[in-house]
Amino acid sequence: MKSLKLLIFSILLLIVSGLNAQNTAKYVFLFIGDGMGDNQIYATEIYKASLQGKMTPEPLVFSQFPVQSYAITTSADSWTTDSSASASAMATGNKVNNHEVGIDPVTGLNYKTLAEKAKEAGFKIGILSSVTIDHATPASFYAHEKSRGDYDKIALQIASSNFDFFGGGGVHSLGSIDDKNSVISSLTNNGYKYLTTAKEIENLKKGDTKIVAVNPGTYSGKEFYWEIDKNPKSISLAYFTKKSIEILDNDKGFFIMVEGGKIDWASHSNDLASAIHETIAFDNAIKEAIKFYNNNKNETLIIVTADHETGGLTLGSNVSKGLKLDLLQYQKVSAQEFERSLSQLKKLERKVSFEEVLDSVKLNFGLGDKEKGLELTKAEKKWLLEAYENEFVALKKINPDRDYLDHYSKKPLALRVVTILNTKAGIAWSTEGHTASKVPVKAIGVGEEYFKSTIDNTEINDIILKVMQISNKQ
Amino acid sequence: MKSLKLLIFSILLLIVSGLNAQNTAKYVFLFIGDGMGDNQIYATEIYKASLQGKMTPEPLVFSQFPVQSYAITTSADSWTTDSSASASAMATGNKVNNHEVGIDPVTGLNYKTLAEKAKEAGFKIGILSSVTIDHATPASFYAHEKSRGDYDKIALQIASSNFDFFGGGGVHSLGSIDDKNSVISSLTNNGYKYLTTAKEIENLKKGDTKIVAVNPGTYSGKEFYWEIDKNPKSISLAYFTKKSIEILDNDKGFFIMVEGGKIDWASHSNDLASAIHETIAFDNAIKEAIKFYNNNKNETLIIVTADHETGGLTLGSNVSKGLKLDLLQYQKVSAQEFERSLSQLKKLERKVSFEEVLDSVKLNFGLGDKEKGLELTKAEKKWLLEAYENEFVALKKINPDRDYLDHYSKKPLALRVVTILNTKAGIAWSTEGHTASKVPVKAIGVGEEYFKSTIDNTEINDIILKVMQISNKQ
Repeated sequence: MKSLKLLIFSILLLIVSGLNAQNTAKYVFLFIGDGMGDNQIYATEIYKASLQGKMTPEPLVFSQFPVQSYAITTSADSWTTDSSASASAMATGNKVNNHEVGIDPVTGLNYKTLAEKAKEAGFKIGILSSVTIDHATPASFYAHEKSRGDYDKIALQIASSNFDFFGGGGVHSLGSIDDKNSVISSLTNNGYKYLTTAKEIENLKKGDTKIVAVNPGTYSGKEFYWEIDKNPKSISLAYFTKKSIEILDNDKGFFIMVEGGKIDWASHSNDLASAIHETIAFDNAIKEAIKFYNNNKNETLIIVTADHETGGLTLGSNVSKGLKLDLLQYQKVSAQEFERSLSQLKKLERKVSFEEVLDSVKLNFGLGDKEKGLELTKAEKKWLLEAYENEFVALKKINPDRDYLDHYSKKPLALRVVTILNTKAGIAWSTEGHTASKVPVKAIGVGEEYFKSTIDNTEINDIILKVMQISNKQ
Repeated sequence: MKSLKLLIFSILLLIVSGLNAQNTAKYVFLFIGDGMGDNQIYATEIYKASLQGKMTPEPLVFSQFPVQSYAITTSADSWTTDSSASASAMATGNKVNNHEVGIDPVTGLNYKTLAEKAKEAGFKIGILSSVTIDHATPASFYAHEKSRGDYDKIALQIASSNFDFFGGGGVHSLGSIDDKNSVISSLTNNGYKYLTTAKEIENLKKGDTKIVAVNPGTYSGKEFYWEIDKNPKSISLAYFTKKSIEILDNDKGFFIMVEGGKIDWASHSNDLASAIHETIAFDNAIKEAIKFYNNNKNETLIIVTADHETGGLTLGSNVSKGLKLDLLQYQKVSAQEFERSLSQLKKLERKVSFEEVLDSVKLNFGLGDKEKGLELTKAEKKWLLEAYENEFVALKKINPDRDYLDHYSKKPLALRVVTILNTKAGIAWSTEGHTASKVPVKAIGVGEEYFKSTIDNTEINDIILKVMQISNKQ
């Protein structure tokens, strides 16, 4: 009888502790793959399998999470959201207009974000991105602005957030000296350190706070270089995630948001190989959170999701020839870097021939290489020649920092090359913009059961606050 | 103390009954929306909301299921599956080659299906479809053939299955009298009744067995008329589902597979309005299963999934103009029926003018109607004129029963009309074929927890056999 009582007591204890374990998380990670629809993820998994000659997708770490469903991403004013409206929905639990950051679409009043609430409740806060930290997605966790494009105003709110760690990309508004001075002085006046060297970042340690740590491997101190380009100066998003965990780890707990920002950018330029490499880098960052989770299972929740899908990516559209994502391995550079390399050729005193351009295309994308199964058709060559004549003969200017994204008017040569390779690989994009598709949500840890079914993206805020036991009131 | 004991006893009882409830289902429904990717579902939900002026998707019944995740659909020989390989994977737990039905891709030997195993174990079996019951998806649950196109051989296996109820579409091979005789005689010889009138179907009652019940509202005794065309002869898939439950309900249990087969067909012709109406009809069939579930919660599992996505449907591709699915309400006919009506016009003795055709386009699709926001641009009119000249002047033959699906060569007029309307509604298709995307899986009832995360489509077989407590051995 005594042992029965003990058994029953143990069962009850298990139930109670189980309930508790299901309800409270001290450590919450929110990973947002910008533009990462389910097909961007799946393409990465098929690509990895194809390289090994397998016919079973090679799942990313977050595709092995025990709970995986969908989120609806509508904004207050559109079926198709932008990043600021979607990230604001996740950060505040309220629908926001496209291009607005953390404000009520009617009154314009600020919605307090879950990160602000968590900070007030004593949790440490980390905000990381592979693009600038004043970009729409990270901004939505600390800033409140009518326009996501007001980078200067948004950057000034980094300092006033008092959040513990900002890491990854730099600040967009540092472009002009005036902005630079005002943003940097706002940070230093409020006790922040603005770190830009690998050594400074490496030296960061547990308990450090008020840090802005910028990857030395970025375009002009802004977003990370492309993963596919393997720039030796780059520090990975995974390393930033690892350091943020090291710095922010404390008994009270933390909230860390990590954005893989360039999955979206690659998808805007319909450049699947670049999107795949960004997705792999994002997955590597998630692996760092998993390591932490493995040591803190009863107190940790990891959520991986996206703000929206970009590009309307379709896999296997080439009915007769099938899906051949292994062909993407021959792409050695991002569309943007390839356009930059073409810009350098244009500056040469001598005239660069179409044949030279084709040689470069072959070297960097395998296109034109019969042995790789990548011969160019007459129509494809003609399409490339047209761009060559525009850019090298008529000298139509292409700005690789801007126009590489711009399919809308006339596709620059680099984007045509990528399009041809993507088509041969059996995939298609239906737009250069965002789409309305639901996005995947994948969860592991305390509270994962809240993600068993389709949710609205605003519920991500509600669930995080619930599991962290923070009031959801404004 | 006594009340405490009672409480503890109740808790233990709850746990035990809970465990039991989680493990055994007597009644299992598998709903397969052919070609129904998540965007086909979501489009339907946004369409329904748009008609009401709402900005929140109006969820279908199965989008309210408590567990919703993804299935991987690769076949044995391709990343992009066809219906027979995917349905065979679900029906047998084994990967099968595209175009093959329920056989080992290497040895050619038969894989026993879960329906065959359930029949042997004493469960009643129902196989329903809105296309022919010898079509790839339903065939995969009872037939074994090297080629899904061998309809005559497949149809003969209906009789030998000894399954209790086949319903919905007719038999494809009934086209020729020889086939008709052999199929019908095989059925009658084996004790089957082949019912083709509404009255006969209405009279079916609990306990009836060996029935093939064909909708009187079909194209030549084959697949259902299109839902969007509201043919008065049609009996709904929901009615067939309701009748199948009534007939098959018994204490031992049943397995019922219901296919919404024309979501795929509409998606092949890139006709979103028709796909939406088929999806609504499919949802209505699921509602019948939900009614049964509500009275048998502890013994029932309902799974809704797809075999693959068709068309590479993208929502919101029209960046500047947004998603306007409410415009699809002006489409009153399927692309196929519209092409049929054009065929009738071609048979008139007098010459039908382009203006008359445009009037019909306006009447049936709203296109050309300024007040509806559906003005035709010059380019669109030119594109329609080109098809008009092909079909009405050069008298290029279009077979509405076949070519309405055929985008690959030259788009017939009806498909051009649908494409223009779809584009104005802000959606895009990237292919006329299948895509490799994962498909949604949604579950409610006993064993729903097995669907919390991404599964392979073969696991659907495994889970169904597990919850029905049937051996998974060959």
